[in-house]
Amino acid sequence: MSGIQPKLQPKGLSGTIVTETKICSINRTNGITYRGYNLKDLAATSSFEEVAFLLIYGELPNQKELNNYLNQLASYRKLEQPLKEILERIPKNADPMDVLNIACSFYSTIEPESSHNNEYKIANRLIGSFSSILLYWYHWVNSKKRINTVTHPNDSISKHFLKLLKLKDNVYDEFVRALDVSLILYAEHGLSTSTFTARVTASTLTDMYSCVSSAIGALKGPLHGGANERVIEMLKTFKSPEDANDQIMEMIKNKKTIMGFGHRVYNSESNGDPRNLIIKEWSKRISKFDQKEGGNPLLFSISERVEDIMLSQKQLHPNLDFYTASTYDQIGIPLNLFTPLFALARVSGWSAHIIEQRSLNSLIRPTSRYLGTLKPFPPINERVLQHNYNFTSKL
Amino acid sequence: MSGIQPKLQPKGLSGTIVTETKICSINRTNGITYRGYNLKDLAATSSFEEVAFLLIYGELPNQKELNNYLNQLASYRKLEQPLKEILERIPKNADPMDVLNIACSFYSTIEPESSHNNEYKIANRLIGSFSSILLYWYHWVNSKKRINTVTHPNDSISKHFLKLLKLKDNVYDEFVRALDVSLILYAEHGLSTSTFTARVTASTLTDMYSCVSSAIGALKGPLHGGANERVIEMLKTFKSPEDANDQIMEMIKNKKTIMGFGHRVYNSESNGDPRNLIIKEWSKRISKFDQKEGGNPLLFSISERVEDIMLSQKQLHPNLDFYTASTYDQIGIPLNLFTPLFALARVSGWSAHIIEQRSLNSLIRPTSRYLGTLKPFPPINERVLQHNYNFTSKL
Ligand SMILES: CC(C)(COP(=O)(O)OP(=O)(O)OC[C@H]1O[C@@H](n2cnc3c(N)ncnc32)[C@H](O)[C@@H]1OP(=O)(O)O)[C@@H](O)C(=O)NCCC(=O)NCCS
Ligand SMILES: CC(C)(COP(=O)(O)OP(=O)(O)OC[C@H]1O[C@@H](n2cnc3c(N)ncnc32)[C@H](O)[C@@H]1OP(=O)(O)O)[C@@H](O)C(=O)NCCC(=O)NCCS
Repeated sequence: MSGIQPKLQPKGLSGTIVTETKICSINRTNGITYRGYNLKDLAATSSFEEVAFLLIYGELPNQKELNNYLNQLASYRKLEQPLKEILERIPKNADPMDVLNIACSFYSTIEPESSHNNEYKIANRLIGSFSSILLYWYHWVNSKKRINTVTHPNDSISKHFLKLLKLKDNVYDEFVRALDVSLILYAEHGLSTSTFTARVTASTLTDMYSCVSSAIGALKGPLHGGANERVIEMLKTFKSPEDANDQIMEMIKNKKTIMGFGHRVYNSESNGDPRNLIIKEWSKRISKFDQKEGGNPLLFSISERVEDIMLSQKQLHPNLDFYTASTYDQIGIPLNLFTPLFALARVSGWSAHIIEQRSLNSLIRPTSRYLGTLKPFPPINERVLQHNYNFTSKL
Repeated sequence: MSGIQPKLQPKGLSGTIVTETKICSINRTNGITYRGYNLKDLAATSSFEEVAFLLIYGELPNQKELNNYLNQLASYRKLEQPLKEILERIPKNADPMDVLNIACSFYSTIEPESSHNNEYKIANRLIGSFSSILLYWYHWVNSKKRINTVTHPNDSISKHFLKLLKLKDNVYDEFVRALDVSLILYAEHGLSTSTFTARVTASTLTDMYSCVSSAIGALKGPLHGGANERVIEMLKTFKSPEDANDQIMEMIKNKKTIMGFGHRVYNSESNGDPRNLIIKEWSKRISKFDQKEGGNPLLFSISERVEDIMLSQKQLHPNLDFYTASTYDQIGIPLNLFTPLFALARVSGWSAHIIEQRSLNSLIRPTSRYLGTLKPFPPINERVLQHNYNFTSKL
């Protein structure tokens, strides 16, 4: 077969083309496109729901379709009783990514995939229910409140999320739109690790929930979605731009990884991630709000300083997680809900990829090169002197 | 960079070498080896626990280490109260693979990975607890019994499983050993799709539970672990070897996929999967048991006939799932627990791969070739005539 590659692929499959796709393009001239539309236009004009529809169904909705879609998503906000009972059993110090994972697998048991409950419905169910799941659990563990997760059906997902989070009906339009834009930016980014995981999982023809749950597990990692939480942890340790300067220089000297910088796809020769400019603008805009409302100009100027040093010292640009972190922090989102919001948004991209993978499926089953030696099998009573270290210390 | 492959890889990454490994080798001359030892020797002489130790720690245990290890595994059989309460909320018609997935993610919330609770401990916890989890749930949904999941600490995992399943203290040694051998054979097989999923997930430096939960989702699919359940469903529709003959011929004519046949790694030119001979021998041996005890010579002869036709008509050999299905059925394992047993066993291989991936980590983030076109962004009120099909029918 001419297609077979006997060569070992580059580490981390960097640059390896594993599939063709019609979902997303990433390119220096055109920036990022979702289904052929420039992400800049989408972030300027569309809502997250419109973008989710575009990714999942392949086309932008017209107004009637969008209205139907909003109603459909809103219908998933009410949580089932056994799901609530399960959420109440998850401890307070849990990672909310695990909360999403448990809920996703549980939905598979009460609303399994079938011809009536197909891949589109499941994608929408997860997108529609994730805010309710997260915030039901959040308020339960933090204040033993069983909140009502249903708000007005016209509320966007961002508004629903912020209303439930703050348990009040009035939330600033700018905060809602900042969150909405961040969800648009997080919605899709080609074969990110979690998306690739979702496609590999999908290739066994397993159900949608399993694919999404695989992706959630991958997104949780600090080299991927988990980075946005680490960014704010780091920024909060800096007292001033000058302090940030000194500490970052020290970290660079000690060859530490600075969270929120670098990206496999945007190397130092590129101008960095085009999404970064968009979310940075929002972070700046929110920083001008009254401090009592969340505006934090110091956090923003510290962030800018870190950006400058990283560019001049390491030729590394911020990635999307960097200014998303300060945006989320300023609009009052608790640290541990940053990555779950990334997940909520990315369900739309994952779903598009799972559906595409199914449409052209071949089991994804690569191979490896064996580096070990072959050994004769020793009976158990002859193994005594083979190794004198103690495995039980690892137990 | 010389390593970059601008070519699209073969479909399903067939033959693409994505990593080097010291865990498993698969090769025509030597068959399959785990950590350098021939699987035939392991299946003839070792226990599943010995093999799990070998995979996870890299060396065969001596007797003292094995004893410690057995105690360690047995200590995880008692289930935590909130976990039991969660299991009781999962409906009867759930896929038990989802039960495992929920439990795995829940463990992440009550026993998160940390320096005290490291990757080795978590691997062992999952291997040690999966039978308890499955059978606690199984008896609860089937007969509202809250079973005691603790049996004698000297019981092997296979014995523990069969005792809990049958809720009796005496189980045939041959049945226990047949299950034990099947777990050895299922424990590891290089970069199977679920294992590759686990490694991709691990590459974001996420926690162990997330990696295992990703893998469970992939294993559930019918093109992977899910095949063993479909095999027995198919075999049960055949009344006799002759009937099997006719029906399989018909399926071949209609280009149907016959579950339990074919494998990416063993193509028609090879002698098939070396594990197949081993498990076939066990299926045969169990078929000679009294029919009241489970022996089913008809099922075995139907299976053999299917094997013959597939070889002569399609040059396809059975894979491991084929005779495992009749083995499990004869020893009285319910259909929907077949794939979960595969998962229990494969946790050992997944864990070895996750640990290896971490030791040489680079984020696994490949790329794709974009096939779509670029389009100008239309305002929502100009989208009316763009597409005249109705998305809401998919909702
Ligand atoms: C995203 C990331 C994993 C991409 O990694 P990659 O393509 O495998 O590239 P590498 O990690 O090999 O980095 C290439 C070089 O840049 C350096 N580098 C990359 N990101 C860095 C960072 N955030 N801080 C410091 N150095 C970094 C590496 O140390 C390496 O230097 P070297 O060649 O001298 O060893 C990596 O940039 C990273 O770890 N970033 C921080 C985590 C993060 O923000 N993730 C979110 C991504 S959306
Ligand atoms: C395991 C499996 C996915 C491997 O697939 P693969 O390497 O992608 O190979 P393909 O599916 O492309 O199969 C190659 C050819 O053999 C045929 N084939 C493979 N397995 C077959 C099966 N079980 N029944 C009928 N035909 C089969 C294919 O139809 C194809 O024929 P074609 O070239 O005329 O189209 C495939 O063999 C399969 O679906 N088997 C049944 C499911 C199963 O038992 N899975 C458990 C594996 S451990």
